[in-house]
Amino acid sequence: MARFEGALARASARTKIIPAAEAQIIAQACECARFDSPALAAAARGAGTLAIPFVRQLTAEVAAISPQAARYVHFGATSQDVLDSALALCLQAACKRILSLTARVGDATAAIARRHAGTPTLARTLLQPAVPVPFGWKAAVWLSLLTRSYSRFRSTAADACVLQFGGPAGTLSAFGADGDAVSRALAEELGLGVPSISWHSARDAFARLGAEAAILSGAAAKIARDVSLLMQPEVGEAAEPAAPGRGGSSSLPHKRNPAASLLALEAAQRAPGLAATLLVQLTPEHERGLGQWQSQWLVLRQLLGAAGSALAAMAEALEGLQVDAGRMLENLERTRGLVFSEAVAVRLSQTLGKAAAHALTEKLCERAVHEGKTLLEVMRADPQIKLDDAELQRLFQPESCYGTAAAMIERSLAEWSALQSSGKPT
Amino acid sequence: MARFEGALARASARTKIIPAAEAQIIAQACECARFDSPALAAAARGAGTLAIPFVRQLTAEVAAISPQAARYVHFGATSQDVLDSALALCLQAACKRILSLTARVGDATAAIARRHAGTPTLARTLLQPAVPVPFGWKAAVWLSLLTRSYSRFRSTAADACVLQFGGPAGTLSAFGADGDAVSRALAEELGLGVPSISWHSARDAFARLGAEAAILSGAAAKIARDVSLLMQPEVGEAAEPAAPGRGGSSSLPHKRNPAASLLALEAAQRAPGLAATLLVQLTPEHERGLGQWQSQWLVLRQLLGAAGSALAAMAEALEGLQVDAGRMLENLERTRGLVFSEAVAVRLSQTLGKAAAHALTEKLCERAVHEGKTLLEVMRADPQIKLDDAELQRLFQPESCYGTAAAMIERSLAEWSALQSSGKPT
Amino acid sequence: MARFEGALARASARTKIIPAAEAQIIAQACECARFDSPALAAAARGAGTLAIPFVRQLTAEVAAISPQAARYVHFGATSQDVLDSALALCLQAACKRILSLTARVGDATAAIARRHAGTPTLARTLLQPAVPVPFGWKAAVWLSLLTRSYSRFRSTAADACVLQFGGPAGTLSAFGADGDAVSRALAEELGLGVPSISWHSARDAFARLGAEAAILSGAAAKIARDVSLLMQPEVGEAAEPAAPGRGGSSSLPHKRNPAASLLALEAAQRAPGLAATLLVQLTPEHERGLGQWQSQWLVLRQLLGAAGSALAAMAEALEGLQVDAGRMLENLERTRGLVFSEAVAVRLSQTLGKAAAHALTEKLCERAVHEGKTLLEVMRADPQIKLDDAELQRLFQPESCYGTAAAMIERSLAEWSALQSSGKPT
Amino acid sequence: MARFEGALARASARTKIIPAAEAQIIAQACECARFDSPALAAAARGAGTLAIPFVRQLTAEVAAISPQAARYVHFGATSQDVLDSALALCLQAACKRILSLTARVGDATAAIARRHAGTPTLARTLLQPAVPVPFGWKAAVWLSLLTRSYSRFRSTAADACVLQFGGPAGTLSAFGADGDAVSRALAEELGLGVPSISWHSARDAFARLGAEAAILSGAAAKIARDVSLLMQPEVGEAAEPAAPGRGGSSSLPHKRNPAASLLALEAAQRAPGLAATLLVQLTPEHERGLGQWQSQWLVLRQLLGAAGSALAAMAEALEGLQVDAGRMLENLERTRGLVFSEAVAVRLSQTLGKAAAHALTEKLCERAVHEGKTLLEVMRADPQIKLDDAELQRLFQPESCYGTAAAMIERSLAEWSALQSSGKPT
Repeated sequence: MARFEGALARASARTKIIPAAEAQIIAQACECARFDSPALAAAARGAGTLAIPFVRQLTAEVAAISPQAARYVHFGATSQDVLDSALALCLQAACKRILSLTARVGDATAAIARRHAGTPTLARTLLQPAVPVPFGWKAAVWLSLLTRSYSRFRSTAADACVLQFGGPAGTLSAFGADGDAVSRALAEELGLGVPSISWHSARDAFARLGAEAAILSGAAAKIARDVSLLMQPEVGEAAEPAAPGRGGSSSLPHKRNPAASLLALEAAQRAPGLAATLLVQLTPEHERGLGQWQSQWLVLRQLLGAAGSALAAMAEALEGLQVDAGRMLENLERTRGLVFSEAVAVRLSQTLGKAAAHALTEKLCERAVHEGKTLLEVMRADPQIKLDDAELQRLFQPESCYGTAAAMIERSLAEWSALQSSGKPT
Repeated sequence: MARFEGALARASARTKIIPAAEAQIIAQACECARFDSPALAAAARGAGTLAIPFVRQLTAEVAAISPQAARYVHFGATSQDVLDSALALCLQAACKRILSLTARVGDATAAIARRHAGTPTLARTLLQPAVPVPFGWKAAVWLSLLTRSYSRFRSTAADACVLQFGGPAGTLSAFGADGDAVSRALAEELGLGVPSISWHSARDAFARLGAEAAILSGAAAKIARDVSLLMQPEVGEAAEPAAPGRGGSSSLPHKRNPAASLLALEAAQRAPGLAATLLVQLTPEHERGLGQWQSQWLVLRQLLGAAGSALAAMAEALEGLQVDAGRMLENLERTRGLVFSEAVAVRLSQTLGKAAAHALTEKLCERAVHEGKTLLEVMRADPQIKLDDAELQRLFQPESCYGTAAAMIERSLAEWSALQSSGKPT
Repeated sequence: MARFEGALARASARTKIIPAAEAQIIAQACECARFDSPALAAAARGAGTLAIPFVRQLTAEVAAISPQAARYVHFGATSQDVLDSALALCLQAACKRILSLTARVGDATAAIARRHAGTPTLARTLLQPAVPVPFGWKAAVWLSLLTRSYSRFRSTAADACVLQFGGPAGTLSAFGADGDAVSRALAEELGLGVPSISWHSARDAFARLGAEAAILSGAAAKIARDVSLLMQPEVGEAAEPAAPGRGGSSSLPHKRNPAASLLALEAAQRAPGLAATLLVQLTPEHERGLGQWQSQWLVLRQLLGAAGSALAAMAEALEGLQVDAGRMLENLERTRGLVFSEAVAVRLSQTLGKAAAHALTEKLCERAVHEGKTLLEVMRADPQIKLDDAELQRLFQPESCYGTAAAMIERSLAEWSALQSSGKPT
Repeated sequence: MARFEGALARASARTKIIPAAEAQIIAQACECARFDSPALAAAARGAGTLAIPFVRQLTAEVAAISPQAARYVHFGATSQDVLDSALALCLQAACKRILSLTARVGDATAAIARRHAGTPTLARTLLQPAVPVPFGWKAAVWLSLLTRSYSRFRSTAADACVLQFGGPAGTLSAFGADGDAVSRALAEELGLGVPSISWHSARDAFARLGAEAAILSGAAAKIARDVSLLMQPEVGEAAEPAAPGRGGSSSLPHKRNPAASLLALEAAQRAPGLAATLLVQLTPEHERGLGQWQSQWLVLRQLLGAAGSALAAMAEALEGLQVDAGRMLENLERTRGLVFSEAVAVRLSQTLGKAAAHALTEKLCERAVHEGKTLLEVMRADPQIKLDDAELQRLFQPESCYGTAAAMIERSLAEWSALQSSGKPT
């Protein structure tokens, strides 16, 4: 808030609205001023806004140096100008940090996608084994989610971090024809974008930023969901990195908890409600609403904090992710070949038709389950199966199920690289 | 869903995966088939998905014509492929309709902004009169909200309306090297975009579309909020158009209710909760989640329906909006000049400094209130006021408070025009 | 809505407000009338409420029989009276059904708690094995959740299913001193409770009912979460009942999906957003709000539908739940005794103190993991452990970890029984 | 958290689980201990819970006094026991404060209902004038909302403020048969209720409390909505009390903003999203979930804070509410008698039937509007109207529209009084 008032003084001096000497005094006071935060908080409740007691304190500080300069404090601005612009400044820093955390998560994910492009693992649908896929392909799906979410968050953040400056009603009524010039100078001082019209009662940019923050939290949590499920000892295919003080239990000495995944999942459960609040607050009354924008700084702080927490946790988790390729293969084999049933059904349908092939495969699967044999053994023993053994064995190679996985991985990696190298400043 | 299965057959024939004759039979069946919806609904509950009984019925229909062709129904696809792609097709149509309704709302708003660029009215902040602004400027703020929301909804819709096609795990395992070719052919048949990787468990595009639909509902409702407040008989500055059967009461013959505003406000209260649901559903388990994507068609239908309802209502309301410029001026004058207090304070601060000027103006205002006089009268009578009468009167002209309103209106109109003429297909 | 209008006519006749003969005609028309739903829906949009075209159609129907009787249709009521009361009638039926489904889920859960009061299984915290517990205790925790949720839903439903009857503003202005008498008669006709004052703009009872419906959905989904995790083949400790057409896959012949759990989890993700909508809608303007109550019938229908769907699914799943006690024991043993580490630490702390005992146990656990031995084997070989073998073995009995599980199960069962036998009418 | 650990030591000593001397040392340390909060916060992230570093610090503090006593710190408890119970203690204090604030709001509302039981004002529906009602009746509707919400919040708070104590899995595994006794002693020490079974993964009580907090926020905001609308200068029927520093503007000296209403409306927009988060978190995995309960303290703190803020603001606003009965009458009269149209229509329907009477009244109203006359004047001049002048005039008395308002006010006041005098401890 002090940065806004200081920049306003400088901008007003640059555009000859107020004298340079007084502007200088105000700007300096804004840099040095110490505010009595508890007193401000108490007064803010009665005033209905923090800006009024803040401007009063600031004016008093300036007046102590120069009563003349105090005349020009906050000149032409309104409470919401200083609060919204101060929020935009905070958001700018927060969004930069979030983008850098997302980049770390994406880079770590890309490395996994590349490293494990050929590592066979089980795809699981509805929590049941489906067909073999490369573990790197699973990571490539995560990466595509991160790529889209990074890109949209970046442009949404740029749209949201703009100056608010309109005076009492939004028309810059105190400045006559000079309003635009002051506006541009002020935005330049603060490093914020200039909107084409003031947005006191048009809060869509914050709603959009909130949604994207919730989506980034969700992206981190999607990965966390999978990691924590893979880390179940009964599955045991991947684990968060171990470190002293990480993931222990206060009562169970043997425990190793997915502590990073916990943080990401926590954030993703809390973010949607906060994002919904911003979506509810799109209908303020007239030129300045009663009870919407006043707490958006609080909601956005919580939301971006949640996103940052989720991403920081998953950056650590993925950079050190322990992947157990042996266990993946073991789990795959423990399905007794049942996860190759689609390959079997597709092959059988070439001669039997889809419906009959599906039905026969289902029967073979059931027999394998009941007799405790592998699907391959059951097929070898079944007179209806006319395939030679080499072909039969080929059906049970994980690689034969990979389909277009390799091309998908490539595209996903390429899109992430392209996005990262297009690093526009936000 | 039938369109998807028909297009899949054609695409598979084009890429030589299945024979052309059989594909033709399937495609035809898909066009003619009548489905037993109640039976499908009942079976869907047990199956956990509508796709399984649907494919079964379709296969039976095809088999009745050609058992040979029935082999190839749904070949290589999975339940979620058909459901997600069918949803994308429905969304495509719905989004087109929503964009066209938004264009109507925007055009009507632009016309108001242009027509009333000089009509003085009261800006109101926290439901209290603030300063005079042109009514067209108020509309220009609405328009800026519509411009941003139209633009983002359009690009978000394009991102969301893409093909889903990945087979059991998402890797197109049944197609070997041909997966990409079938994918592209299928997307072309359906008029959908092609994703770089399947997105069964990466639901961000729907979450984003949901948020934008809620924002559009909110944009309509922001205007509705203002219109309904202006339509209070005690304010009486604007009114929804009258028409037989519109806005009456079942018990009060004299009533004229803001029925269009009601619909927009209704939608904007319902949309955030639905949008939040999509934000909650970003963390499905592994390659296909348990309970998230399965109901997103329902949530998106309700959300886009809400947005469409809000926009359709406000298109009608704004196209026929009754603006009472006389009443606006009257309300302005009934404030006894108090809404010119900023202008007065700014002028007085030139000699007294801001704090003293603000304090003096506050005292003058209080006196005007207590004595039932206008602020001008009080100022004329106050010996501290050294301004000549011509200057005093100028302070009380609405136009002297317009600041940069005209330039803001121009920019807002120009951005809307530019957006509309950049009509990319969605 | 017709039931309300018919009952209003009868109640008004009983209290001598309108003639009995005409009331009879209206009541009969209400029972027989067929409404043109599409025409009503279309007219409702313009009118801002379904009630106006509905009353118009009904009046026309009555007028066709007796113009004299038509005078008394809807007499003294307002649109919101008929809509809210009709909603209360629908809710009454829906809540009764939901309670009966919850009773089935609770009974099935109680049976599991009783049957498996001694079946050892692994408790799991943060998705990691913790300590042995009886599987029946796990079910008893579910049951306590159901008991509380059933009880609160029942009382909340009783509070919400009350008559709305206030006329244009809520004061029953058309009835003078007779309002209360008509009100009571009308409530009696409809079988609804009588509120002490009309509640057109006090919507807390619906918000509360919505929250309880979301909680019941969540209770079903909590059980579904656990069942679906236990049904992972890698865990394999419990499974939803198998049945033809249940939980198959359109592409994978071997799959058996947790289809009931899916439905419960789906509902629990959709319900909170809907419940939040009702919480947003607590602030209607003045005596009848603009856009809140108008869609609460829709939101409540979706919410109660979600709850009903979740409960119906879990009733089926739990009534036929397949519990694999052998697999539970096997999984317990595969932890190599590590889940007895608390018991070990507690025992060791008797001589070493808690901190030292915890540290030593942690080291023993690590050694067991690294050397591929059981914790018991490692302890036998460690010179710091001074316990005799009988005591050592006792530490590794599941039953020695049950603590107060048995008493908790008993209390949980007793509370459920008590609640069920206190079956107040709702 | 320290209170919990101290009480646990005392309770364990009382039940002979640990020696009394050591318990005394622990209890004392818990009272005096100073914790290094920043270090705890940093360690909590890695540990996935604040409890682990907290217990470690506490143990170190105790060990510095007596290594022997340090053995018994946190004995038999788990992280979630201390966190949930500490939260219950905080909630207990917060709920007490909220109830006392609600009592103030209710008392102030009851006073208004009583004082203005005969003050005529306009009821407004859909923001349009409806019929005359006593202003005290409007307050009585507010009061009924407060009565229900106070009552439900009180019982829900009592249900939520219970001990959590279950050890690693919830069965109190470390205590054998003594678990229940320790539990009861611990609850007694802390002044919390005892649950029948541990509730680590059954979070319904918190979800319910969150919903009730949102409802209380909404109740305050409903009143705030009405007050802020009545305070529009164009309406001017009521106003928040004036006080130095209350509701001013940083740019407009004449403004007087509804600052208390702002705070209540702010809270009611933020609360539903937070309450929805708790409704989403009902499905933790197994015996202790990953990412739900871990942040419920944060969400509940924000929610109860919002409710408290809303209620405190409205207590002040209503205790000093300025009611302008003159302006109410004036606004009533400015409707030119149109708000008596229901009375007119009811009277006319006695001879013409409802439909014809409604149509005629509508025509009379239109004529009054167009000719700028009162409805009474128009009726006197209309040959179709056969009523004598005395009867005509009686139709236009506000009191003739009050219906059963007086009885409703009485019941509302009586229910509030009864509730307040039934002050069970919470």
